[in-house]
Amino acid sequence: MDIDGYKEKSLKLISESEVSVGDTIHVKTHDDEFTGILMPRYELADENHIVIKLKSGYNIGIKTANIQSITKIIQGSGQNVSVETFKREHLKEVEVLPKIALISTGGTITSKIDYRTGGVSSALSASELYASIPELEKYASIDTDVILNEYSENLKPEHWTMIANKIAEKVKSNMYCGIIVSHGTDTMHYTASALSFALQNLPIPVVIVGAQRSSDRPSSDAALNLISATIFATKSQFSGVFVTMHASPSDETVACHVGTRVRKNHTSRRDAFESIDITPVAMIKGDKIEIQTEQSEIKLQKRNADSSSFLVKPDFNNKVILLKYHPGFDPHLITHAIMSGYRAIIVEGTGLGHISRECFPQIQNAVKSGVMIFMTSQCIWGRTKMTVYDTGRDLLDMGVIPLSNMTSETATVKAMWVLANNKEIESAKKMMQENMANEIARVVPIS
Amino acid sequence: MDIDGYKEKSLKLISESEVSVGDTIHVKTHDDEFTGILMPRYELADENHIVIKLKSGYNIGIKTANIQSITKIIQGSGQNVSVETFKREHLKEVEVLPKIALISTGGTITSKIDYRTGGVSSALSASELYASIPELEKYASIDTDVILNEYSENLKPEHWTMIANKIAEKVKSNMYCGIIVSHGTDTMHYTASALSFALQNLPIPVVIVGAQRSSDRPSSDAALNLISATIFATKSQFSGVFVTMHASPSDETVACHVGTRVRKNHTSRRDAFESIDITPVAMIKGDKIEIQTEQSEIKLQKRNADSSSFLVKPDFNNKVILLKYHPGFDPHLITHAIMSGYRAIIVEGTGLGHISRECFPQIQNAVKSGVMIFMTSQCIWGRTKMTVYDTGRDLLDMGVIPLSNMTSETATVKAMWVLANNKEIESAKKMMQENMANEIARVVPIS
Repeated sequence: MDIDGYKEKSLKLISESEVSVGDTIHVKTHDDEFTGILMPRYELADENHIVIKLKSGYNIGIKTANIQSITKIIQGSGQNVSVETFKREHLKEVEVLPKIALISTGGTITSKIDYRTGGVSSALSASELYASIPELEKYASIDTDVILNEYSENLKPEHWTMIANKIAEKVKSNMYCGIIVSHGTDTMHYTASALSFALQNLPIPVVIVGAQRSSDRPSSDAALNLISATIFATKSQFSGVFVTMHASPSDETVACHVGTRVRKNHTSRRDAFESIDITPVAMIKGDKIEIQTEQSEIKLQKRNADSSSFLVKPDFNNKVILLKYHPGFDPHLITHAIMSGYRAIIVEGTGLGHISRECFPQIQNAVKSGVMIFMTSQCIWGRTKMTVYDTGRDLLDMGVIPLSNMTSETATVKAMWVLANNKEIESAKKMMQENMANEIARVVPIS
Repeated sequence: MDIDGYKEKSLKLISESEVSVGDTIHVKTHDDEFTGILMPRYELADENHIVIKLKSGYNIGIKTANIQSITKIIQGSGQNVSVETFKREHLKEVEVLPKIALISTGGTITSKIDYRTGGVSSALSASELYASIPELEKYASIDTDVILNEYSENLKPEHWTMIANKIAEKVKSNMYCGIIVSHGTDTMHYTASALSFALQNLPIPVVIVGAQRSSDRPSSDAALNLISATIFATKSQFSGVFVTMHASPSDETVACHVGTRVRKNHTSRRDAFESIDITPVAMIKGDKIEIQTEQSEIKLQKRNADSSSFLVKPDFNNKVILLKYHPGFDPHLITHAIMSGYRAIIVEGTGLGHISRECFPQIQNAVKSGVMIFMTSQCIWGRTKMTVYDTGRDLLDMGVIPLSNMTSETATVKAMWVLANNKEIESAKKMMQENMANEIARVVPIS
């Protein structure tokens, strides 16, 4: 008998009812009934719920304590599951739990497989997601808000503004001990950077969370990532913007990354997100938070009951162009950037921060035209250092500004934010080089 | 007494002469004499040489067997070292050794610190480099050719053509069992890709090698990388294009990577180069080659005495533009690419291969205008998969071609090569998707 992942109370109930994972079953509770396919449980699941997939495609969790009977309808995965609507009321909030605001923007974490096309579409609302992961009620009382329903490749700087404003509203209400943002993974690290600059002196943690596998698949990382985000949002001693995603391919540990220092480094693995040039802030194992980061690498702010210094600067100016240098790169692209009215160029250079001397005249023109040029490295890890080789020194002399170990993605986002918040080019250049939210690690800790 | 790295014969000689590392010494051999600073040795150095830094800035190795006397001139690092010219004749070739051609293109591996500016400049010739690493004579008899003296950020596709033609000339001479190309590290992986496509059915290995620290520093990785490249070039059972660089920060192991699957992933570490989505082909420890790669991941060709099927296609067409997508990306950049006569766009998309639907009209225009659009992922690791989400499927419908786990860098180089070798757009598209040199791992092995 296949009883994947079930244990103790829930295992006992399943065994006694003589049903297996994959069977279509009918479940009666004291005030409702459901028909669906019994789903496997992920490893860290509790013993208090069973999960069935309804014909609508959603998974729901049903409290074992509320179950009066389970009847097998069809052996193995059936097709004739009758449609039932899950009622949120089953999961009664316990008033003493810490309060969390969950802001849903879309992405795989809120998606389900479209059985028509075989693809995945973004559809599940945050409240449905909460309903499908009943373990959450152990850790927090969660208010949900769906503000967007987009895969994150479609998000633009104006969406960052929208998300920042919604978070600010929640923070200012003083009702929550933490905020969770569910988000598509494709540009989650860009949004994490954007919120890190837009929301200053946050009194509470803002945790962005996504999933690499859709939440109605048994292999989904959605449940554990969201549970871990909830644990970090409620228990963390630190405030600021973070990303929580699987730290390994298995359902063992979730890593919590600093918003400005995280990158999606794999197209499909559940542990695709990595901290760049630092260790993750924390590892979340079960419901324990293990703080990892040395204070010497980055500087984190403590959670703070006083929100009076909290500052919202939600605007971005997207006249920023990111150019990745490569052999055969056409220097006229730089001219195109000048002509098109871009105000900042992020050059993703080679090695320590280099581009061919063939581009020097265009670089000089750009600087003369008042376009700021910032240098990052396409190496991903390590910092730019433009004093070592002739090429770097020549570029420095022309006015190119190296950004140390700021990632290209964070540099692009920061430049958009800096442009929206500075009228003067000199103050904009200065702000780009200041370490505001750990975007430069182990150099100038923020105060 | 400081005798860093010296052992057995050389250590005995130094001890008996009562000199230390850092002292300015005068060395007499049976037919010459030198004055310079006694330099430390790297860990794997042999016992048959001592190394001194001449006033010219170069390090030279002197055979202990040839040394008649060592006299201390100045205690510690002195300034008054008299200039001596190193004579290549000391290192007599042993005729039975395998023959290697070393083609020098420049970069840190052939560079020395400019004591005037404090920076590093590319200056040392390949023969001087050979002279400075006397251990090489244990493994091969090396012919050297300096064809370029450039930091690799300045290399262009026409340089790839020049290097490919020089290698072809050496291969066709049938005089060599392997070719080594010394190269700057910034774009070494781009050149490795370029040579992988330009040189087909290579009968012998072509090994590209560089250094992250200049060769006159005690911490330089130049010597070990070049020794390991020589070992692989002489002993490898495989032909093809490879890159050999440190596998760890210490001087223990050098990794040998497939030319199309390697990337510079750190700005400064000695182990900056990593194989993407596969393990390195081999680890070189001391003078042992440990083959690592499973034949299921990639397909390597065996070394082959017969060079009749060797094919040189050295041309590249640089009407290829690499666009890295990010939130706030301006779709008009795609229009600019069409208007500027680019024939292929490599879109470095997010996640599994996505860009915002805001770019869809421009993508459609590009395809209509006969511009090929290829999709890679900025995640670096993992493959594109555009059938999972709506965005991907829409892009596929428009004619965007996913490139699996080809790196963006290799995709850019390959597109330049494919354009130069195909007049028809359909054959160019087909060739981009064919696995020719392991640029797509674990999918279609090359025959």
